[in-house]
Amino acid sequence: MKKIPVSILGATGMVGQRFVLLLDRHPWFQVVALTGSDRSIGRTYGEACRWVIPEPMPEYARMMTVQPTEPDGESTLAFSALPADMAREAEPKYARAGKGICSNASAFRQEPDVPILIPDVNPEHTRIIDTQRKNRGWKGFIVTNPNCTSTGLTMALRPILDAFGIRRAFVVSLQAISGAGYPGVASLDILDNVIPNIGGGEEEKVESEPRKMLGTLSDGKIEPAAFQISAHTNRVAVSDGHTVCVSLELGKRAAPDEVRAAFAGYGFPDAVRGLPSLPKEFIEVREEQDRPQPRKDRNTGNGMTAVVGRIRPDPVWDIKFVVLSHNTIRGAAGGALLNAELLTAQKYLDR
Amino acid sequence: MKKIPVSILGATGMVGQRFVLLLDRHPWFQVVALTGSDRSIGRTYGEACRWVIPEPMPEYARMMTVQPTEPDGESTLAFSALPADMAREAEPKYARAGKGICSNASAFRQEPDVPILIPDVNPEHTRIIDTQRKNRGWKGFIVTNPNCTSTGLTMALRPILDAFGIRRAFVVSLQAISGAGYPGVASLDILDNVIPNIGGGEEEKVESEPRKMLGTLSDGKIEPAAFQISAHTNRVAVSDGHTVCVSLELGKRAAPDEVRAAFAGYGFPDAVRGLPSLPKEFIEVREEQDRPQPRKDRNTGNGMTAVVGRIRPDPVWDIKFVVLSHNTIRGAAGGALLNAELLTAQKYLDR
Amino acid sequence: MKKIPVSILGATGMVGQRFVLLLDRHPWFQVVALTGSDRSIGRTYGEACRWVIPEPMPEYARMMTVQPTEPDGESTLAFSALPADMAREAEPKYARAGKGICSNASAFRQEPDVPILIPDVNPEHTRIIDTQRKNRGWKGFIVTNPNCTSTGLTMALRPILDAFGIRRAFVVSLQAISGAGYPGVASLDILDNVIPNIGGGEEEKVESEPRKMLGTLSDGKIEPAAFQISAHTNRVAVSDGHTVCVSLELGKRAAPDEVRAAFAGYGFPDAVRGLPSLPKEFIEVREEQDRPQPRKDRNTGNGMTAVVGRIRPDPVWDIKFVVLSHNTIRGAAGGALLNAELLTAQKYLDR
Amino acid sequence: MKKIPVSILGATGMVGQRFVLLLDRHPWFQVVALTGSDRSIGRTYGEACRWVIPEPMPEYARMMTVQPTEPDGESTLAFSALPADMAREAEPKYARAGKGICSNASAFRQEPDVPILIPDVNPEHTRIIDTQRKNRGWKGFIVTNPNCTSTGLTMALRPILDAFGIRRAFVVSLQAISGAGYPGVASLDILDNVIPNIGGGEEEKVESEPRKMLGTLSDGKIEPAAFQISAHTNRVAVSDGHTVCVSLELGKRAAPDEVRAAFAGYGFPDAVRGLPSLPKEFIEVREEQDRPQPRKDRNTGNGMTAVVGRIRPDPVWDIKFVVLSHNTIRGAAGGALLNAELLTAQKYLDR
Repeated sequence: MKKIPVSILGATGMVGQRFVLLLDRHPWFQVVALTGSDRSIGRTYGEACRWVIPEPMPEYARMMTVQPTEPDGESTLAFSALPADMAREAEPKYARAGKGICSNASAFRQEPDVPILIPDVNPEHTRIIDTQRKNRGWKGFIVTNPNCTSTGLTMALRPILDAFGIRRAFVVSLQAISGAGYPGVASLDILDNVIPNIGGGEEEKVESEPRKMLGTLSDGKIEPAAFQISAHTNRVAVSDGHTVCVSLELGKRAAPDEVRAAFAGYGFPDAVRGLPSLPKEFIEVREEQDRPQPRKDRNTGNGMTAVVGRIRPDPVWDIKFVVLSHNTIRGAAGGALLNAELLTAQKYLDR
Repeated sequence: MKKIPVSILGATGMVGQRFVLLLDRHPWFQVVALTGSDRSIGRTYGEACRWVIPEPMPEYARMMTVQPTEPDGESTLAFSALPADMAREAEPKYARAGKGICSNASAFRQEPDVPILIPDVNPEHTRIIDTQRKNRGWKGFIVTNPNCTSTGLTMALRPILDAFGIRRAFVVSLQAISGAGYPGVASLDILDNVIPNIGGGEEEKVESEPRKMLGTLSDGKIEPAAFQISAHTNRVAVSDGHTVCVSLELGKRAAPDEVRAAFAGYGFPDAVRGLPSLPKEFIEVREEQDRPQPRKDRNTGNGMTAVVGRIRPDPVWDIKFVVLSHNTIRGAAGGALLNAELLTAQKYLDR
Repeated sequence: MKKIPVSILGATGMVGQRFVLLLDRHPWFQVVALTGSDRSIGRTYGEACRWVIPEPMPEYARMMTVQPTEPDGESTLAFSALPADMAREAEPKYARAGKGICSNASAFRQEPDVPILIPDVNPEHTRIIDTQRKNRGWKGFIVTNPNCTSTGLTMALRPILDAFGIRRAFVVSLQAISGAGYPGVASLDILDNVIPNIGGGEEEKVESEPRKMLGTLSDGKIEPAAFQISAHTNRVAVSDGHTVCVSLELGKRAAPDEVRAAFAGYGFPDAVRGLPSLPKEFIEVREEQDRPQPRKDRNTGNGMTAVVGRIRPDPVWDIKFVVLSHNTIRGAAGGALLNAELLTAQKYLDR
Repeated sequence: MKKIPVSILGATGMVGQRFVLLLDRHPWFQVVALTGSDRSIGRTYGEACRWVIPEPMPEYARMMTVQPTEPDGESTLAFSALPADMAREAEPKYARAGKGICSNASAFRQEPDVPILIPDVNPEHTRIIDTQRKNRGWKGFIVTNPNCTSTGLTMALRPILDAFGIRRAFVVSLQAISGAGYPGVASLDILDNVIPNIGGGEEEKVESEPRKMLGTLSDGKIEPAAFQISAHTNRVAVSDGHTVCVSLELGKRAAPDEVRAAFAGYGFPDAVRGLPSLPKEFIEVREEQDRPQPRKDRNTGNGMTAVVGRIRPDPVWDIKFVVLSHNTIRGAAGGALLNAELLTAQKYLDR
């Protein structure tokens, strides 16, 4: 089988690097273009990129020349790790040029005809691509993955919503520094410290994105799930892995064991079976009293599994627990890659 | 004026060290005894104590001989930094021997005739000492300060409860490693990590202690405040300073500016005016979007002021904010010292 | 081929856990016994062990019952992760019972008839096992791997000693917290801090072990290499990976490029070819001005390759550089495992 | 006494902030101008400056308007916290305009007629100001303080050089992140990591500056001290406080106790007695086996005392020890302030 040619937009940043790493020897995709800012264009990726991931830079990328972020002739699909403002401008050009965009940027997430997608949560939302194409006259399309904190949270809410309904949610995040990119958080700001704010509308994203993803699609529109979320977001001295404390008011009461059973019983939607980046487990439930922990649990399922722990009754509402997910894998590049795999399987790239 | 002779029980631990430091040149109190475990008894404090606080060990303590934790002839008052199990046994002996105990231990906090005291929050609760003495036949007494996380939280809740009433509260803590004492948290457990549990019934304490302190005293009994709290508690890589994210359902709606005004307008109770360890401000409200932060704000008011920030509407309930307090000063030794000062001013030591 | 049955002594500690992990699906060895302290004996490994490594506990170990540290009937070889004092007592029992010991403990390293072994540095030193057996009447034997800091240092010195000779060495280490085991270093001692001493004779080990390993064997005796080492050892806030700054006076002058060539030209000794845990590269030389770094380079060659960087002239002596190695893999369990593989290949286990 | 009007050049950066803090209520100096970059000019200091020091911003500075870095009419003296390239241009303008410059920048440190000054080490070097004025036709002057790592090192070398002579030195630093300014070191580069290089010619500075400061002045020229230094410099996850491991070949042999005695016996030069920022102790010698430590010892003498520990024989040369000093106080702003105080006392500002 011939691999699908793909490009990575904004390839030198933190999330761009994760794309480069995850696409190394990918069975379906072949990277044909890496784009970067003016400072990088024309240099080799090896020179232009300050590689900050512990795993070494893949050999295939080292000698590729960084290109401007303009639709190329070769690629069918583009992974976007662009900042929101650049994404707003560049991504439509790619879509117009007939390319599929799997974007990690927030720029289009709130557009009604753009899905925020987690394949094992809401694979049916890809259907609004048809509306999107019609609305915008694009041959390509834009699909987004959620904000890194919304990702693990939404994964944990899916089985609970299905089983018991959700009325209200309180969530407090303890987020890793890699979420801010590179150079991102200054070391003087985080050593022996907590920053009780992420900025960039993070709390608003966490309060709205899960509801869109857990919403229902009808008549080419997504009706957000009808529950409320209140979010506090914090930065802590962790390299990778966002921890989220969650308290829920359920539609109907459920004991911790029933919630555990709901997590255990959640089956992958048929649509995602066989996707190369799908982890073995959607959610791993840990029983220890002090898990999940970022350092020990973030790499579960190669960073694609959300890890839940401390499921216990909530004295004010119904249930509380902690969920951890890898913010630059499942919460960014890995999530976008899984989106691309779903879209490939669903033939959205065949044009 | 002759200083009041005091002893420090469990003086070699983390909180004991804070007592030693805070009592250096105290205008009212003079340390006459330091007690420790079998391993330390008979050695000088300088030898027996692995001093872990950045400020140097006060000279007065260095050559004092560590004694067993038994009521001595000399001291009128004892500050207890004992672990809960040892406190349960030792503190009543001191009270029986006629000594006042200002205890940081949790052992007696839930006893109906023992106050949990924050002088600038509930000074009138000292009155149940009379009941305590009658019940137990003690000439002395036991007064406790709250758990370190409850402390800052309760300080923040006091003005809001007074102004608007509180129905329900969600609180999530990001707690410093010093809260676990020394050696306490292993470095391998917290470097590049979060531990999503404190253990030792921390969450239950945070869910109950504020309600007792904010309760009303009548007929020698404390009726807990009638609101509910749900707590998640986490350990983070911070040396000192507990950060707490708070969301509140109020008795009556209040905009952020009204909440700000309630904090600003909170006046110290008359009972505490003139106490040596009282800070200039009870609560400092910060307007920056990324404060309070442990490293920058924990020493506000010499670690005795709680710092509040990010006051904003809560989309589910009414109001949300962040409160920070110094866990080993206001939340432990400094809190107990202020208790002792109040009790001295209220003549509870005059027997 | 039937696998060789092996036991892990002191399997619940930090280095013991590394052995458990590295022996998972090992092509030559099969773990048949895990030993632990009184507190652990009789419990399953899954229960008894507080697993502190980020990678998950291998399944094979979880349900094994922890046994006392006494020679069992089954195993041919024992990996020892015992503390020095326990090793001094237990390891000879195993050797007397005919078992080969690959020990990470320092207890016997300085015995003249016990080799300190790095297979790709001094494989010929295994020959003093014959002397050892004769001296002590053992059917088995004890072989040690060096101290974790000595390991990377000695690997870097080997090609230089061969090419230019070494007269004197200054070395300063920045060592990871995992080197102290678990719980090991208290977080309050290392957050925002450096501890300028490791204790336990670390500096003496670093000043003597490399010379023994780089010494020559004749008449069943090891003559230490004739150069002097001065060591400073420090603990820093790093999870894994010891960094060592090295300045050398050479036997004959050499420019940085010649030193680079010496590293590049170092060929693995024939004795080690084909050993399963041998990395592809003995030493990787990095050219960036800010490498090696523990977080980015410690896993080079699965933690078995030493990484050298910043090779430059030394204004006082001849050459200076930095060497990094993974302290619990190459510097402990991985090193001992490679020793066992060499001894297997050399037929020392055939009795 | 009327205070001397001073300005702070580059006041919004990390070292500039330290100047602002240290000059709060200074008995001799009054800040009349704060200068900053184009981005800051015209805004209040409170708005323009991202304050990163844990102590609060002094009130006096908050409402001052940030000015361009051009000689003003009012100030007699300027403290320069400018980057080297800007210092090279701006400082001579101030000197030409008749102002004294106490500069923390490296720009002019190597000029033969510009002293690198530590008042309690080489106060007599101020005399080359006369040469400097003659050479350059300046009414004012430039005096520099050394690089932050050179500072503590030179303080430790002074008593030893005086007592025993020094032939050669090996020094390895473990430097705090604050040395890189703000934002400076990215958190992703230093969490769970060491960076084995500081950049900016740090090692060359450490190898040359101490020799200039410890040199002798004759005929208006400084003859550098005749010993050699080899330096390795590393960045570690410490907020403030540079640790330096030192090994020395002495002019004549000395036992650790003699070295201790040399430190203890070092008397402040007469020239510095009574200077307001002079600490009680020049060097504090600690006897514990694990001190000095940055977190516990950096504030000794309000950050103006160097702390030495682990004095022990060196197996290759003569003596080894560890020295710690506060890099942004004694090693930067505090050092420059002490310089200004010396120059005031020596009447260099009277023109």
